[in-house]
Amino acid sequence: MNPKTPGNSSMMSHPNVVAFCGGVGAARFLRGLVREVPAESVTAIVNTGDDREFYGVHVAPDLDIVTYTLAGLIDDAQGYGLMGDTYQLVDTLSQLGHETWFRLGDRDFAHCLHRTLQLRQGHGLSQTIAELREKLGVETHILPMSESPCPTLVELTDGVTLHFEDYMIREGAPDRVRSVNLSAAQSATPGPGVLQAIAQAQVLLFCPSNPVVSIGPLLAVPGIRDAILASPAPCVAISPIVGGAPIKGPATPLLRGIGVEVSALGVARHYADLIDGYVLDTKDADLEEAIQDLGLRTRVTDSIMVDAQAAGRLARAALELAETSP
Amino acid sequence: MNPKTPGNSSMMSHPNVVAFCGGVGAARFLRGLVREVPAESVTAIVNTGDDREFYGVHVAPDLDIVTYTLAGLIDDAQGYGLMGDTYQLVDTLSQLGHETWFRLGDRDFAHCLHRTLQLRQGHGLSQTIAELREKLGVETHILPMSESPCPTLVELTDGVTLHFEDYMIREGAPDRVRSVNLSAAQSATPGPGVLQAIAQAQVLLFCPSNPVVSIGPLLAVPGIRDAILASPAPCVAISPIVGGAPIKGPATPLLRGIGVEVSALGVARHYADLIDGYVLDTKDADLEEAIQDLGLRTRVTDSIMVDAQAAGRLARAALELAETSP
Repeated sequence: MNPKTPGNSSMMSHPNVVAFCGGVGAARFLRGLVREVPAESVTAIVNTGDDREFYGVHVAPDLDIVTYTLAGLIDDAQGYGLMGDTYQLVDTLSQLGHETWFRLGDRDFAHCLHRTLQLRQGHGLSQTIAELREKLGVETHILPMSESPCPTLVELTDGVTLHFEDYMIREGAPDRVRSVNLSAAQSATPGPGVLQAIAQAQVLLFCPSNPVVSIGPLLAVPGIRDAILASPAPCVAISPIVGGAPIKGPATPLLRGIGVEVSALGVARHYADLIDGYVLDTKDADLEEAIQDLGLRTRVTDSIMVDAQAAGRLARAALELAETSP
Repeated sequence: MNPKTPGNSSMMSHPNVVAFCGGVGAARFLRGLVREVPAESVTAIVNTGDDREFYGVHVAPDLDIVTYTLAGLIDDAQGYGLMGDTYQLVDTLSQLGHETWFRLGDRDFAHCLHRTLQLRQGHGLSQTIAELREKLGVETHILPMSESPCPTLVELTDGVTLHFEDYMIREGAPDRVRSVNLSAAQSATPGPGVLQAIAQAQVLLFCPSNPVVSIGPLLAVPGIRDAILASPAPCVAISPIVGGAPIKGPATPLLRGIGVEVSALGVARHYADLIDGYVLDTKDADLEEAIQDLGLRTRVTDSIMVDAQAAGRLARAALELAETSP
């Protein structure tokens, strides 16, 4: 996976780290992680369940959020898109009668168009991401979980099924979720390098991402869950739930929709068969014992990533927890 | 063609006019023409030989120049594109490694993308143009000469063959033209409504457009030349050559390439079998007699369209020449 880092390097000095990633939470965590370990020793395996065609181009929200964030180009206020982008394209499309609830910036669109033209020429999604992150000077390896289309579908209580982006952006993430359909991911193939990266990892991390629609699709792709279970590397999750609510995003209705309690404990239970350690926020310290009772080592820390330093401290906590693995 | 204008209306009051059009020269002429006759009685039949895919979208330069000009949206200084447009998209594509010598603005791109998405859904090019000009409040009928791809190819003396856009924009219209290849247009089908519009016209006008790469492709589409010859309507051309040089654009090497003298007389000879009248500039008054000797009625006037009023006067001259038809 990373020819520069020999497989037998000391884990304490610079372990090979594989991070399972959604969008904003994962990207901010990675920004901290690469302060603690060399960026080139980190492989981000990224959810593609949110990917969709908009305006004729292949939009890959989580891959782009991770790439833009690590490249220092992200619009930090939004958490997605490119800093200082303009919106001439969607505004014009709107005037021409298109639905434009997905507000893709002009430069962001150019990136998606570039990818689309490359895909049309037969390049793989992984290759397009690798070329882009190299062009942008990002040393962290970024792998799509799959090159197959893996749309995450959200089934509402009224029987309507929506693509995740329609659920999230167009509909504003309504509460009435009955279930989440990951059948596309369940019949997909892991992307190039994904299983190898997991097999070679010395630390596995579940970023503080949505367990249902970010980490969920990753784990649904055949082979990924088994590779995690087969790995001797410690696996640590960082709770995306603080004080009974997600830090960001629509985790509440989605967790409820799949029958998971919306708490740091609920998510720990959800991940328990896969992970060894669990990082939770100080606000949830009262849950630590119950989480330990699941057989997990724990670390309680301030998990709100107000800046890259804070994200670095959180990453350090996760790595230290991994390093104390028996 | 135009259900609002009965076929038997007095030609003197508001004739059905069909104008054969390239890009900038034609668009400026049309802006004058619709000051002289009701816009809805004019049908512009527009060259599509310049059309090409750029950045994954269908670019139709002449159709867009005509539409944007009549809608009052044209970037007048450039003669193409949308007033006040931005260039985030091409600038970003350039950073990502694309050739971006074709500088398509962001809003202009959105229009081309809209058309591309419509074409992909099975709409015809004519339909997309009709919908757009209605949306923009343009009452002039605008018809693509054909819905078949009709790329105009320019063959250089060194044996290289270039698409017209590559010749014109990328290469800067070099002199070394051996010939112009219109074989695609020669095997195309006229667009919906084209032959009917010509058959119903009471005046036919050749706009002051490039005779080789604007009017040439139009006349190359099987059926169009015959429809002009079969029409009882007077046909008047406005010379695009003033004082031995084109008003704008690369007509000189292209005319030479097809063996036509670069003069108002040369173009008159080139069109002589199709037209009844010819409008030439005062600078070329010395050529009037030679042009009359071709069997053409003539009108000498100031043909430089410095503004819409001047274009209106030029259009009036052409219409009056048509109206004096025996």
